[in-house]
Amino acid sequence: MTLRVGIVGISGFGGGEALRLIAGHPSFDLVYAAGESSAGLRLVDRFPGVPARLADLVIEPWDPASLPALDVLFASLPTGRSAEALARVPASVKIVDIGGDHRYAEGWAYGLADIWPDRIAGRSRVANPGCFPAATLTALAPLLSAGLIEPGHIVIDAKTGISGAGRGGGDSRFGYAESNENLVPYGLLQHVHMPEIATTIAQLSGGSAAGLVFTPHLVPMTRGLLATIVCRGRATTAECLDAARRFYAGRAFVRVTDAPPQTKWATGSNLAFVSYAADPERDLVIAMGAIDNLGKGAAGQAVQNANLICGLPESTGVDGAPVWP
Amino acid sequence: MTLRVGIVGISGFGGGEALRLIAGHPSFDLVYAAGESSAGLRLVDRFPGVPARLADLVIEPWDPASLPALDVLFASLPTGRSAEALARVPASVKIVDIGGDHRYAEGWAYGLADIWPDRIAGRSRVANPGCFPAATLTALAPLLSAGLIEPGHIVIDAKTGISGAGRGGGDSRFGYAESNENLVPYGLLQHVHMPEIATTIAQLSGGSAAGLVFTPHLVPMTRGLLATIVCRGRATTAECLDAARRFYAGRAFVRVTDAPPQTKWATGSNLAFVSYAADPERDLVIAMGAIDNLGKGAAGQAVQNANLICGLPESTGVDGAPVWP
Amino acid sequence: MTLRVGIVGISGFGGGEALRLIAGHPSFDLVYAAGESSAGLRLVDRFPGVPARLADLVIEPWDPASLPALDVLFASLPTGRSAEALARVPASVKIVDIGGDHRYAEGWAYGLADIWPDRIAGRSRVANPGCFPAATLTALAPLLSAGLIEPGHIVIDAKTGISGAGRGGGDSRFGYAESNENLVPYGLLQHVHMPEIATTIAQLSGGSAAGLVFTPHLVPMTRGLLATIVCRGRATTAECLDAARRFYAGRAFVRVTDAPPQTKWATGSNLAFVSYAADPERDLVIAMGAIDNLGKGAAGQAVQNANLICGLPESTGVDGAPVWP
Amino acid sequence: MTLRVGIVGISGFGGGEALRLIAGHPSFDLVYAAGESSAGLRLVDRFPGVPARLADLVIEPWDPASLPALDVLFASLPTGRSAEALARVPASVKIVDIGGDHRYAEGWAYGLADIWPDRIAGRSRVANPGCFPAATLTALAPLLSAGLIEPGHIVIDAKTGISGAGRGGGDSRFGYAESNENLVPYGLLQHVHMPEIATTIAQLSGGSAAGLVFTPHLVPMTRGLLATIVCRGRATTAECLDAARRFYAGRAFVRVTDAPPQTKWATGSNLAFVSYAADPERDLVIAMGAIDNLGKGAAGQAVQNANLICGLPESTGVDGAPVWP
Repeated sequence: MTLRVGIVGISGFGGGEALRLIAGHPSFDLVYAAGESSAGLRLVDRFPGVPARLADLVIEPWDPASLPALDVLFASLPTGRSAEALARVPASVKIVDIGGDHRYAEGWAYGLADIWPDRIAGRSRVANPGCFPAATLTALAPLLSAGLIEPGHIVIDAKTGISGAGRGGGDSRFGYAESNENLVPYGLLQHVHMPEIATTIAQLSGGSAAGLVFTPHLVPMTRGLLATIVCRGRATTAECLDAARRFYAGRAFVRVTDAPPQTKWATGSNLAFVSYAADPERDLVIAMGAIDNLGKGAAGQAVQNANLICGLPESTGVDGAPVWP
Repeated sequence: MTLRVGIVGISGFGGGEALRLIAGHPSFDLVYAAGESSAGLRLVDRFPGVPARLADLVIEPWDPASLPALDVLFASLPTGRSAEALARVPASVKIVDIGGDHRYAEGWAYGLADIWPDRIAGRSRVANPGCFPAATLTALAPLLSAGLIEPGHIVIDAKTGISGAGRGGGDSRFGYAESNENLVPYGLLQHVHMPEIATTIAQLSGGSAAGLVFTPHLVPMTRGLLATIVCRGRATTAECLDAARRFYAGRAFVRVTDAPPQTKWATGSNLAFVSYAADPERDLVIAMGAIDNLGKGAAGQAVQNANLICGLPESTGVDGAPVWP
Repeated sequence: MTLRVGIVGISGFGGGEALRLIAGHPSFDLVYAAGESSAGLRLVDRFPGVPARLADLVIEPWDPASLPALDVLFASLPTGRSAEALARVPASVKIVDIGGDHRYAEGWAYGLADIWPDRIAGRSRVANPGCFPAATLTALAPLLSAGLIEPGHIVIDAKTGISGAGRGGGDSRFGYAESNENLVPYGLLQHVHMPEIATTIAQLSGGSAAGLVFTPHLVPMTRGLLATIVCRGRATTAECLDAARRFYAGRAFVRVTDAPPQTKWATGSNLAFVSYAADPERDLVIAMGAIDNLGKGAAGQAVQNANLICGLPESTGVDGAPVWP
Repeated sequence: MTLRVGIVGISGFGGGEALRLIAGHPSFDLVYAAGESSAGLRLVDRFPGVPARLADLVIEPWDPASLPALDVLFASLPTGRSAEALARVPASVKIVDIGGDHRYAEGWAYGLADIWPDRIAGRSRVANPGCFPAATLTALAPLLSAGLIEPGHIVIDAKTGISGAGRGGGDSRFGYAESNENLVPYGLLQHVHMPEIATTIAQLSGGSAAGLVFTPHLVPMTRGLLATIVCRGRATTAECLDAARRFYAGRAFVRVTDAPPQTKWATGSNLAFVSYAADPERDLVIAMGAIDNLGKGAAGQAVQNANLICGLPESTGVDGAPVWP
């Protein structure tokens, strides 16, 4: 079975990674690509290494009224830009929205695929989690589900590679010379990802994430995202690791490791690595989650979600090993 | 058909990339991994993101006398370390040597797969080209074959990412803090890759590469290799591009581009990008070749060679699109 | 007045930065350099850009018994390597120990120069703070002194550039190819800098740092260190900033900024940048400190300390503006 | 004696480096700063680490009609933007133009300070050399002056850090995620710096630079520039090194090294490193020059030129040692 798929937002980093994964997906046939800054170009003009069979596909201006027949549409648009347009996509076209407009929106499944695959399978509208929530919640879910930590006292320090800021029209803050050799905290006490994290913590634990603190940072690397999370709970390190290994038993994409996870372990893949260190005498648990922000944090999880909603094996086309070094 | 394959030199960068590609190859089953610094570890201890089915394979100390039954062995050992040991591998085991000991050695095919696939198919011993020769010769071959440049006046300025220096036991010259933000020329007038390049130029052109100049540089990036080559010849830019497009017509991995090629176009792939700029009034042709030094420059071409000697379609398992950004 | 100074540990990153600063210091004359890996070389062999007047100074093997007449010795040796040797340095030679062996050791002043200059002036043995403590304590001191946060609930997430790991004999974990594009948490719940931080918090606040959590990370950049610190306290952002501006009024090297501090602001300088964000309704204060780990975190503060113990103006030779970009 | 100096183009990288050097210059007092994107801001808003005494200087919109009384103006404007405006600066104000509009222009000295200081001293209008010419010509001048190479056969392969492309309004080609891990040749056979190089070669040699080839590349690092130059000549390596040592005897900023020069040797300084490797049997000489593109390639040489035209010792304020690592 081959499904006809499209990408809107092909010019951005999330769209580009979706293209790479879809190009290698045995059941997806890319028949439509849309973007703003690259409309009118052929795919090969924008992505010189695209497979030859896709080279001459012309990137179209994004217009939901002029879609070809599609089974699945991947949308990777800036936050605030997809809600109205995606509402006009025919119901027959399944959508995975990598952007931020539909997380916990009515009618949309929340696509935390490693944790809630059953909420996604069979749906036709899925909102991909944000990159920070993906790493954070993957690390926290086993502890919250097992009651090993208190949902109301969670302090997240998150670090992302600069592709997480998007291509952004060339904002000079993200220029090479100014970003290289620089480490930048931002969005203190007001980051857009907090409600999504808080809602999911509440669903996983049954309690309130009242004390949530979330501090994001930009790190001088292209890809990679790490969440270092300080929690309150009386578990030992072994109990945390065991809980996570049980929680993710049989799941393809989450690896529970004894050593602290490094972002490079995940580069180019849909994997998430989680680990834990605890000091039960101090009611202290440190949880860590490492992903590729464009993989599990964006396009990788999006393809996993598309597989789920299309009834394909979950790992199809996203089982590539990470790129090292 | 599934072939039993092994890797020796799994601890190094070339070996690691071979592992990634073999893990995703539909006809290769990795049954043997050997290495020095990581012997005794499981694959997952060394490569945390390795597919689950390979995780528990134990890395063995390298001993050609104790190989399991294998169809193909990939060898990625430091130069000077493979000649004696590989001579003891049974003749029934096909070998692709990514290392430097067997290039133009007796009994070994020279594995310049995009140019001379017929010399490789059906052989049982193939020496992979060096990373610098791979980029250089891919760019030069069409011009030399068509007689558009003089073989005796070729000036190569080559730049490689630091993985090209190998893992090297942690030589502090390649430490992050000293290599980052640094650009280093080395091996002036004496680089080990020169004879291989000169021999191939002579074979491609029928003339002598007497005036060859080759200057390598280390560039602060992990992967990527660019050769910028100044040649003498009266062709126009269009004639060079046309010659290359004809030369590589129907070949899967070489892309001829109008714009100067960038190394990032090839990252994580087996692609090579070539382009040309000429000033016929000054008898001047500039040829450029860009590759991933661990892809086309090492493990990617090695898998392509293995496909050729095993009678598989050349692109099997190495047709992944490049990673961007 | 010109003072005769020496450096031991010249081969390392801290020693190299001390050399740069001392070479530009108007009252210091470098007459002695010792090191292990570079003993026997001239300074220019190891540091090609060293000023001409110092070029031919020969690096000696480190032996406290054969020191020339010195006013000040800067020691930048690995932790565990300076205690015994420095005990044999004549009392007439003032010492600033950049290494970790003498922090809060008997007979040694703790050289937190921006906060406690009076404890340092006139002493002859000063232990430089660690790089993580320097950033952390500079950010926390105003809040602790003013009672705006509780000393017993401090959660530090710290990130350092890779030079913070030292030259280390070329440990391949710190090789370029493996460190680049990688973000690595380490030393969880057991980092060597914790006692130093806890002791200083207690001294600044009069309370116990019982709940201290400290999680260090290696970030792919050469220089730069950021501490992001989550505290409990009822202050507003404005109150925290005001407290810090009062605390550091008249001090040369600490800048209190409204925006979150970036590490690149400090590169190559002895500056520290601190800022704060608070949510008094949640008893939450986030404090941030950014430094150059080799500047304020090592050699910069060491020269500042040397100035203090020699009776020179504190900023002499360390008032250079940061390097940007 | 304190001179009143100004900078126009303070927002760019060259202007920023000029600010750093002027802030540390014992005879220069910065009284004027102008820029476009940062007009209206205080210096400290744009450069958080600027010395306190300069923090509140307000950046003005650039208007040559409203200059304060100045002894020297440093201009660092994009090419094509300074010719008209600088013509309106009063003759009483000396100008060093870091930009590209006045190189070999009538009435302007060409500021190749290490080679032709006598052409600069006493002048009131000096055009700083481009960054590529600075590295290239510093390496070639001794060979051309001594007749060791032929001026008509010079092949330059040049590599610059990305700050060399300017801040540029945030062109996304220079964004971190797209520039990192990428190596980009550009401007083939048509780079703007070629006439300046050719003219200077002709002046140094008395011959024509007819065969000049110049190929620039962008390298993923912030600062640093290397020119690798293949020449025709019969000299030995020793003869080239000797010629350079004689040529630069007594000059402060050029270091002739036996080993190939690395860009990091020069970072943050006004130094240039040159070296040579020759094969007289093949009439082959390789010359190399390494600089900081913002130091000797821009602001460092500009301050050196300002010293020369103001009658100050040439090294004043630009004798800082390089930053390492």
